[in-house]
Amino acid sequence: MRLSDAQVGRFRDDGYLVLPELFSAPEIGLLRGALPGLFAEDTPANVREKAGGAVRTAMGLHLRDSIYGRLVRHPRLIEPAIQLLGDDRLYVQQVKVNVKAAFVGEAWQWHYDFATHHHEDGVPAPLALNLHVFLDDVTQFNGPLHFITGSHKAGPQPTFLDTETTSYDLWCVDRDVVARLTEAGGLFAATGPAGTGLIFCDSLVHSSPPNLSPWDRRIFSLIVNPIANAYTDNARQEWKHHRDLTPIEVLTDDCLKGVADR
Amino acid sequence: MRLSDAQVGRFRDDGYLVLPELFSAPEIGLLRGALPGLFAEDTPANVREKAGGAVRTAMGLHLRDSIYGRLVRHPRLIEPAIQLLGDDRLYVQQVKVNVKAAFVGEAWQWHYDFATHHHEDGVPAPLALNLHVFLDDVTQFNGPLHFITGSHKAGPQPTFLDTETTSYDLWCVDRDVVARLTEAGGLFAATGPAGTGLIFCDSLVHSSPPNLSPWDRRIFSLIVNPIANAYTDNARQEWKHHRDLTPIEVLTDDCLKGVADR
Repeated sequence: MRLSDAQVGRFRDDGYLVLPELFSAPEIGLLRGALPGLFAEDTPANVREKAGGAVRTAMGLHLRDSIYGRLVRHPRLIEPAIQLLGDDRLYVQQVKVNVKAAFVGEAWQWHYDFATHHHEDGVPAPLALNLHVFLDDVTQFNGPLHFITGSHKAGPQPTFLDTETTSYDLWCVDRDVVARLTEAGGLFAATGPAGTGLIFCDSLVHSSPPNLSPWDRRIFSLIVNPIANAYTDNARQEWKHHRDLTPIEVLTDDCLKGVADR
Repeated sequence: MRLSDAQVGRFRDDGYLVLPELFSAPEIGLLRGALPGLFAEDTPANVREKAGGAVRTAMGLHLRDSIYGRLVRHPRLIEPAIQLLGDDRLYVQQVKVNVKAAFVGEAWQWHYDFATHHHEDGVPAPLALNLHVFLDDVTQFNGPLHFITGSHKAGPQPTFLDTETTSYDLWCVDRDVVARLTEAGGLFAATGPAGTGLIFCDSLVHSSPPNLSPWDRRIFSLIVNPIANAYTDNARQEWKHHRDLTPIEVLTDDCLKGVADR
């Protein structure tokens, strides 16, 4: 799997890249099939919503289920990441499904991932990539990610730690910064059918509204980071930033199918 | 101003009708110009958000400002309402601007207006029409109304009074009803540039997400109701359901211009 020059150019300009039809319906079916059991587990790696207790994000999934153990080494995710970073020594930093359940899934405030990676984990530079796979159709109605196009180019912005708004503490960006960056670049809603892939960079400012719709919005998220840019602080829980610095070894393109055939 | 047969048909089928470019940029400018002063007034008719105190909805505006006094008699709003209702004896039931301010404007839960009109005001039948004028560009990013297409056809659904979620108590629809109606009709986001008009009926189920964007989303809303279908209970504050049953007399098409020329 290799991105075209045009795709690489768009990623550099916008800070994100949508990859339509990256995974097939049967593959998505397998990934979805594992979720009810994982969400039912009583573990602190399942972070629940402030109100009601629905799973907000289920973390460390590659260590909890074999199909997610394969997905984090999938060539359709890892090969583009290696290409964009020009570095084939990457480690698995974080693996989760952000659920945003129908009716109850809450917002994610305006933030960029590097603020957390830097403040909490001591990651030196904003190189990590967030690789998404839509496990449900993501529409304007069920809480898609909203990116400020090109906001990564302004470099890391001032942030504050918000421990109030949701159940997941987050380093957030001030409203005046959001207004200024949006004025320059505009907003983009990352929508598409289940199976859509998405890559975005570590300093891209984004948010997502709550899901008031009757449709779940489950998105798989794998963050990979160059080993040369690894964490220097390990105060956070293991499932928020994995410690294992073994380079990711890519599997074959049909690796998910293998799990189904067991 | 007369709706085409196709427009009337769409309204009957969908429960709503968008009217692009209903008001001009200069007219919208006049309507917007009055808002800062109105929002600054210390009156219970300005309902403020639960957190922060920004105006959530400013009510009774036709009695508070002359341009809104004219807008509630504007032929581009009232003539279509008379046409759709087949009744030229209408009264002004409610007049407001729903603000949904940038960053802080909160959601409106799933509801239909008639539940409140019936439970609170003793309105007999779901005949009232809600006539909107967008005072800002309304996009997928700043909290547009989401309609369940055709949900009015199912008739009034069971409701419960939600006094918790926001600062404005609202008769709301259960999640299982929303899921069932959405499965049948799908969702529609009412978006468009400032100046867009919108009509929707009293039993149409709708909601709107919070506004996380840096753009205000101010919408003028006039509810008109046939005098023959008037309130039978007047327990609510006057600005939530006006008591004056004088039939609306339509002004001329240039009536807003007159205010500017004072």
